[in-house]
This record gives sequence, C-alpha cells and structure tokens, in this order.
Amino acid sequence: MKTFILLFGCKDQKGIVARISDFILKHDGNIITADQYSTDPEGGHFFIRVEFVLGQDQYKKNDLTLEFSPIGSQFGASWNFYDKSETLRMGICVSEPDHCLVDLLYLWSSGELNVEIPFVLSNVEKHRKLAASYNVPFHYICADKNNRKEDELLSYALNSTDFLVLARYMLVLSPDFLQKYNKDIINIHHGFLPFFKGADPAAKALEEGVKVIGSTAHFVNNELDEGPIIAQEVQNVSHKDSREDLVRKGKNLEKKALASAIASYIDYRVIRYENKTIVF
Amino acid sequence: MKTFILLFGCKDQKGIVARISDFILKHDGNIITADQYSTDPEGGHFFIRVEFVLGQDQYKKNDLTLEFSPIGSQFGASWNFYDKSETLRMGICVSEPDHCLVDLLYLWSSGELNVEIPFVLSNVEKHRKLAASYNVPFHYICADKNNRKEDELLSYALNSTDFLVLARYMLVLSPDFLQKYNKDIINIHHGFLPFFKGADPAAKALEEGVKVIGSTAHFVNNELDEGPIIAQEVQNVSHKDSREDLVRKGKNLEKKALASAIASYIDYRVIRYENKTIVF
Amino acid sequence: MKTFILLFGCKDQKGIVARISDFILKHDGNIITADQYSTDPEGGHFFIRVEFVLGQDQYKKNDLTLEFSPIGSQFGASWNFYDKSETLRMGICVSEPDHCLVDLLYLWSSGELNVEIPFVLSNVEKHRKLAASYNVPFHYICADKNNRKEDELLSYALNSTDFLVLARYMLVLSPDFLQKYNKDIINIHHGFLPFFKGADPAAKALEEGVKVIGSTAHFVNNELDEGPIIAQEVQNVSHKDSREDLVRKGKNLEKKALASAIASYIDYRVIRYENKTIVF
Amino acid sequence: MKTFILLFGCKDQKGIVARISDFILKHDGNIITADQYSTDPEGGHFFIRVEFVLGQDQYKKNDLTLEFSPIGSQFGASWNFYDKSETLRMGICVSEPDHCLVDLLYLWSSGELNVEIPFVLSNVEKHRKLAASYNVPFHYICADKNNRKEDELLSYALNSTDFLVLARYMLVLSPDFLQKYNKDIINIHHGFLPFFKGADPAAKALEEGVKVIGSTAHFVNNELDEGPIIAQEVQNVSHKDSREDLVRKGKNLEKKALASAIASYIDYRVIRYENKTIVF
Repeated sequence: MKTFILLFGCKDQKGIVARISDFILKHDGNIITADQYSTDPEGGHFFIRVEFVLGQDQYKKNDLTLEFSPIGSQFGASWNFYDKSETLRMGICVSEPDHCLVDLLYLWSSGELNVEIPFVLSNVEKHRKLAASYNVPFHYICADKNNRKEDELLSYALNSTDFLVLARYMLVLSPDFLQKYNKDIINIHHGFLPFFKGADPAAKALEEGVKVIGSTAHFVNNELDEGPIIAQEVQNVSHKDSREDLVRKGKNLEKKALASAIASYIDYRVIRYENKTIVF
Repeated sequence: MKTFILLFGCKDQKGIVARISDFILKHDGNIITADQYSTDPEGGHFFIRVEFVLGQDQYKKNDLTLEFSPIGSQFGASWNFYDKSETLRMGICVSEPDHCLVDLLYLWSSGELNVEIPFVLSNVEKHRKLAASYNVPFHYICADKNNRKEDELLSYALNSTDFLVLARYMLVLSPDFLQKYNKDIINIHHGFLPFFKGADPAAKALEEGVKVIGSTAHFVNNELDEGPIIAQEVQNVSHKDSREDLVRKGKNLEKKALASAIASYIDYRVIRYENKTIVF
Repeated sequence: MKTFILLFGCKDQKGIVARISDFILKHDGNIITADQYSTDPEGGHFFIRVEFVLGQDQYKKNDLTLEFSPIGSQFGASWNFYDKSETLRMGICVSEPDHCLVDLLYLWSSGELNVEIPFVLSNVEKHRKLAASYNVPFHYICADKNNRKEDELLSYALNSTDFLVLARYMLVLSPDFLQKYNKDIINIHHGFLPFFKGADPAAKALEEGVKVIGSTAHFVNNELDEGPIIAQEVQNVSHKDSREDLVRKGKNLEKKALASAIASYIDYRVIRYENKTIVF
Repeated sequence: MKTFILLFGCKDQKGIVARISDFILKHDGNIITADQYSTDPEGGHFFIRVEFVLGQDQYKKNDLTLEFSPIGSQFGASWNFYDKSETLRMGICVSEPDHCLVDLLYLWSSGELNVEIPFVLSNVEKHRKLAASYNVPFHYICADKNNRKEDELLSYALNSTDFLVLARYMLVLSPDFLQKYNKDIINIHHGFLPFFKGADPAAKALEEGVKVIGSTAHFVNNELDEGPIIAQEVQNVSHKDSREDLVRKGKNLEKKALASAIASYIDYRVIRYENKTIVF
C-alpha cells in the first residue's frame, strides 16, 4: 500500500470535496486524514490537504497527477500530489550558536525527522566535527557580512536540496539568491515576530521589560524577518532574568519552534497564503 | 441560507467521504469545515463532522435525515444531522463555590455561549439573586448527601433540557438518575483526572508536592469522576502555594476547562468513544 | 499580631539586609517572607520587600516609619511601610466590553481581591445595573473622544481612591490628568505590548498571521500603551481563528493578566524602575 | 571576589535573618540574592538560601563553616556553605532512549550546565560513541533486570560523583544501593507523577484519554517513582496523538524537566523537606 498526499487550493465553490473524494474512491483509495480551511465560504479561498492510501501498487504520483489534471482545471486550482515514501532533502545552514543544528541532527538520527540531509553548510569551521559524527557532509564557506559567498551556497544547494533551513545562519540572503534558489527556506528567528526583528532580540526584550519572550520559525522572503510565520513558541520571564537567561531560555524556544515548523513542513501541512500560513 | 452539521461514525472503509460529500453536493450545499479521524485506517473506527450550508431554504433537518438514511445504513453508521440555528437547552446545577456559574451566565449573556438556560438549580439558596439578575429561572432543592432529591431534579430537567452541566454540584448523581435522564451531563472536576478523584484534590496536590495542578471537564458516567475527559487545563505551582492558593488558581482552570468543553459540545465537536472523547 | 510590609530601594551596598532585619528583630518582629533583587551587585540598584509580623500590638505604621527614618537616610533609600490590614481603594473605569469589570467585581465579592471599590465609573450607562447588583456606587460620565470629561473623573477619583484600574476604558487619559491624579493607574491592553499598540490589536494579529496572541497589564504613563509592563498572558492561535475568535480568546487573557497584576499590586509586590517593573 | 551560598533550615523563630545577614556583613560580604520560605510562621519550619560575595579573598568555605557554627547551633539548624566556584561532579546513567543524554552533554559542552561529568554509564554499549565525541569517559555495565550489577555501578560512582542523574536508566536501584551511595540521585520519569508510575506511561495516558501529558524530574528514594518532585513539564495532546506521538512529545518534556531540575539542583536551589521539595 502506498500513501499519498494531495494539497489543493482554489476559490471556494461547491463540490470540491465531493469531486476529490470521488477521485480517490475511483482509484480504490481510502482517505486517512483530511483537513480543510476556507478563508470565507462566500467568495473566499479554499484549501484542502488529503492523505490517502491506495490499495493497489500500480499507481504512481505521476499517474495521479495526470489523471487529476482535469479536476484541477475545472476548479481553477493549484494542487500537487506527494508520495509519502519519498523523503525531502533538507540542507542546513548554520553560523552560531549551534543548538538548533545539534537538535535537528539528533532528531534526524533518531528517526523523528524524516528527511535526507545532503549537507550542513557553515561559515564556522568548528561544526565540521559534529556533522562528521552524524556522517553528514559538511561544507565550509568563508563568508561574512561583506562577502556572503552566495554563489558558493547556491552551487551546493540548488540541485541537492528540496528546501533549506537556516538554523541560526547569520548572513541575510539576498533577493537575488532567493530568486535563483526558488524553493522554500525556513528560518528560525530568536524573537517574537513580527516584533524584535533583526539583531539581539534578547536585549530589546530586556529593555522593554516584557514578561513573555518568544521565538518564531518562518519562511524567508525578501524582507528581513518578515516572511510568513509557521510556528511560534513563548515562555514566561521575569525581572530576574538577565540577558544571558533570556538567551538561554530562548534557545529552548528556538529548538521547539524550528523542529515543529519543519515537522509540519515535511508532512506537507504548511500552505503559504497572502504572507501568512495555514498549518494543518 | 441554513447551516447544518453532520456527525457520523462507522467502521473505517472506503468511500465514506465521497458518499457524504456527494450527498451534500446533490443538495446544492457547500462544505464549510470538515474534520475526520480514524482510530486505525485498517479495521478501525471512522468519525467525521461536516458543517455545511444549503443555499436553498427548503431543506429541513428532517428531510436531510430521511434522505441520508440509506447512506447511513449502507455503512452501518451512527449519525445525526443538527441544525445550527437551533440552540441547545443547558440546565445548570451548582452547589458551592459559584465561580463557574458566574462565568457561564456572563458568557451566555454576552453572546459567547450560544445556548438556552432553562434554569439554574442549586441546593444553595443564595444563588437565586445571581440567577435573577440574568433573568434565569432558579430552582432551589433542599438536597444534601443523605437526601439527594433526584426525583425533584429529574422533574425539572427531563423535558426542559438537552444536557446538564454540573458547575461544581457536590451531590453525586446515582446510576438510577443517569439512566432516567439519559442525556449528556458534563461535570467540572477541580483536579487533574484520572487522578485526584473525589473530594479536596487541592489537599492531595499539596501533600504530593506536585509542581503542576489541573482541572478536568468530563462526561458523567456511573463511576465517580471517571467519565470521558473533554478538556483539561493546567498551571504551574510551587512550594509557596498554600492550599488556598491552589484552590484560587484551580478556580481559573475550572472556568476555562468547563467553558471550553461546553463550547465544543454545543458546536457538536465532541464525540464519545470507548470512554474517551474525540474533540474536533 | 499585625502584619507589615516594607518596600525599600537604594543603591546596592553592603549591610542593607542586616540593618533591616536587625530593625525588625529589635521590634520583636518575625519576617514572614522577603524578596530582594539587585540590578547589579556592583553599582546597581537594590530592592527589597519584607513582610513581617510584630508580636506586640503597640506599633503602628507611623511609629515604624519614624523609627526607620535614620536607616533609610543612611542608605539614601526610598522606602515605605504598609499595614497589611489597611485595604487599598481601587476605582474602576470601564467602557466596553465589560468582561474585566465582571471578573473584578466577582473576585472582589468572593474575597479573592482584597480592596475597597469606591466606584465604577463609565461612559456607558448600562453597566449601572451590574455595579448595583454588587452594591458598588456607579458614576456615569457623558464622555467621548472629543470631550473626555477628565475634570469629572478627577473629582470622583482624587480623594476617594488610592489607585485606578482601566478595565477596558477607551478614553486615553491626558498628561494633565495623570499629573493631577498623581497616583498609580493600571491599564489592561488587549494585545501583546510593546507591540500592537493602540486600537484593534486583534485585526493586526490576524493580518500578521501570528500563532500566539497576548494581553498586557501595565502602568499608564504619558505615552499611549507604553507604561511599565506588570503582567502578560499569551495563548496559541491558528489560521482557523477568525477576528471574533481572537477577540474572545483575548478576553480570557485580559481577565487573567489584569487580575494577576492587581493581585500583585495590592500586595505591594510591584516596584516601578526605569520604565520596567520588578514583580516579587 | 568569591561567591558563596548558604543553605539553612530550622524551626521558624525570630532573628534568623538578622543573625545571618549580620554574619555576612561582619565578613565584609554583600548579599546578592536571598530566598526564604516558612511552612508556617507559627511553629513551622524555616528555610533560607543566601548567595553572597566576600570582597576579600582570605575566607574559605571551611572558615565560614567554622565561624558560623555557633549561630547554627543557637537556632538548632541544619546548614551548609557552598563555594560557587567549585563545580559538582554529576554521573550520568542511561539505558534507552538517549535523548536526555544527548541534551545534557550538549548543554554541558556549551557551558549551560556547570558540572563535571566523571562518566556516562550505561547497559547499552552504543552510547560509547556519543560520550567519546564529548571526551567523557564511558562505562559499560552488562546489567539487566535480573542482574543489576549495582556493585559495579557503586564502584564507579561512589567516590567520583557528588550526585547521580538517571537520564532514562531502566534499572530500578535497590534500597541497598541507595543506602551505600548515600547521595542525591535525580531521575526523570516519562509521566506525570504521582500518577502513571512505572512502565509505559504513554500507553496509560492513551487509555485514559487525557488531554494533557507530563514529565517529572524527582529525587530517587526507596519507593518506585515516589521520591520528592523537583520539576514537572506538561503539554496539551488530543485524540489525534498516537502512542508514538505521545512518546515523541514526552521526550521534549523530559529534556526540559530534567535540565531544569539539574540546573536548580547544582545552584543549590533545591531543598528536600517531608517528601516534597522547596525550589528557590
């Protein structure tokens, strides 16, 4: 038995679910889970994620795609089938600190993060040892703010990855790179977006005397720390917490928000829509 | 336009969603939200809640019921249609303290709890004033542990309510009452079930030195504090918290858990299954 | 036995605790709880809150104040004794909605909020009934954005209150009023400050697609929604939450944050320092 | 400058803080933080933790101990001074899974867990590689439920460690071992104690249909999973969570609860009292 996922979005209208479920039934399939959302049943946009098994092995993703095409056209939808047995290839970029890198590699090695990791790439040489201990290729690029070596990054990432994760990568990626790479990039920001953008959010939180801090995993777009939010984690703090305490507590939030966002993403539960996300 | 909800459960098998969505389409309906769950796609039990609008006003709940019958039979399902414009009648039973009663009446009066309240019933006379200030009928019954006056309660509740809420009602209802009333009863327990059953959970929490306390809204069944859990709320506590602090903090949890459970229940989001609940 | 609280702050230096505890011992007192905080043991500012009982009844707050004066002067401190048996007078100002008003009145009537409430003041007449049901005087002022009637507010508040609570009062208080009233004012903001200032934070949260919303209780100062933060509450939200859902969930957070801030304040646990708060 | 910590407990009585702070002042010290707690100001037990710096380097822990002795005797107290520059030696015992081990080693290596780690000990050989990558000695003991090899464990632990952490160590330690080792042992339990003791708490949580799961770090005593609770973490779950989901979510809670408990413990913030803990 093979498991497939259909992600589908179009202008809300009658008969979508009937048509999709009929399609699955006619392929002798059984729906395992389905999630749907409409921004507004009157004239809004409709999204659905259907996970289903096909009892017979003869169908491949391409067959389904071909046969579903008329339905997609009928509704004016954007849609995609995914084969759950195909794992996505996730490139990791990291500078410092490395707590998210450590967490992702461990989750991956213990089977809790179902991806391939073609490489860890860093402008900090010392992470090589960690990558090696997990038998993951490591690429060092001699990059800093003045020379981001984006061509080098692109040459590593373009063909070998399905998406990139910036696990505390301190070099802002240029619009030019984003356009050339043209796939999803997930960043972890150590603050509670849409606020405390940019550097040193812990210092800003301290200055404002907030009683709650946060961390945000989001898609990267052309604006710094402004892409669609996927996951956020928060924690209470008090006047006793020093800047170091906030950084330390923030690390836990970052690990949790990033791992949670990636888990949703690789299970095709995240849909981007109007600079926001739907997370099924 | 009228909004209906279908709750449907049967042995998991192929074609359920297709059949249901086709039925809705043929009645010129549009699915607003759908949630489904299977205990196991292989031989498990399948549940679905579908909320949909019918563009034409001619259909009534009874028509849908009649016409859906063959489909229900085909799958061997238990199912029901609900008309969202019909509000449920919720009887409230309360002893002391009255924080949940106050909360429910306020939520109701401010339009956040879409029910009718045929009465507040209590073995404590002083709640009459509060009920009166909301223009809700109040029934005093002179009941205590030795004489629970369940016949009196039954005579008030049987025909005038669709379900009962025990908002800190201190008299345990007998199996005989449950059988005669034969509708859902939701209780708030001031502890973290399945533990700290029975009286004074705060004292037990204090004795055990727990660092987290909880509160549980659950269906009532024949076993004390053992019915299916609907909602639970928790909060951190510390050695500094006295018994009074635990009680006070617990009250917040009780209000939140009970209001949340009722909100899910009256929107037909709660399904009982094998002494557990599915809360869509 | 009488219980007193000393709040004390000065430049951090040696011997403060020794001197204070010696003072209490010489008055035959026993320290119940003490909390202290230093912004920096090297040249920072030191704060301490000491709650103690005096075995003999002859001492009054004024005696302690007089006798402690030399110690306060020695350390260049600002300090105050409070008699725990004297309750503070809290004026409540409210527009709409009234959920915080309802919550505060209930907590007060059930003995969980140890204050006097000299009045509820509103520019919305209909809250009169609620105040009356709690036997609390109600003042209606015919105020709106164009005419805030601050003189009228001041005439009610100046002598009869120790502090004011803005329980969703929609009229911004002018610097002139703040100067004339010259006591603490606690506001509840229905958003996660220092962000989402001003009107309709739910709409802003929705637009940004945040996955967590918050609420903030803070002191009022001359800048809109910029005073020192006392308490913040947060809750997860998702794409499913409509603007109405965010408002409803926000109400819970507002009640909790405001009640928590007031509870700390009236127990003299809140110290303002450099536009932040220390909350013991 | 040297930083010391005094932990002190005795029957509550007058003058304790005065006497302790006077002692520190006479040694030219400055109190950085102080936390105190009394189970009951009338006849209860009093606990205080004082962290202070001494300006002059001549004092050692032993000097302070000697000189404080008369004060301790005067109050009938149990007390201890700790030198904050001396790090505790923490032995780690682990079976499977290894997520807590990974987390502790990383926190330690990144400077967030200020201990020495004399060894990782396991009855699972494969953790050797991980320990080696952090340059921590690894001891394999060929132990199972029928032969726990406690003598071997004791020979490794007795002299080289100040306390033990059971980071998912699956062999219950015997009363005999506890008596011979006679130092603190911290265990992480993958359930919400005092409930769900023993094996497979996830299965029990699933069966009961709870909506919140937890994890508990506690001291080990002679009763299985019954020692004083130090820290607990909780998380919401739903009917959708399978046993695997509960295990995965539980791992996060375990890491957080264990790291938090250890952080408090090595900073001398944890006091055991009557099978409960005070955590300052």
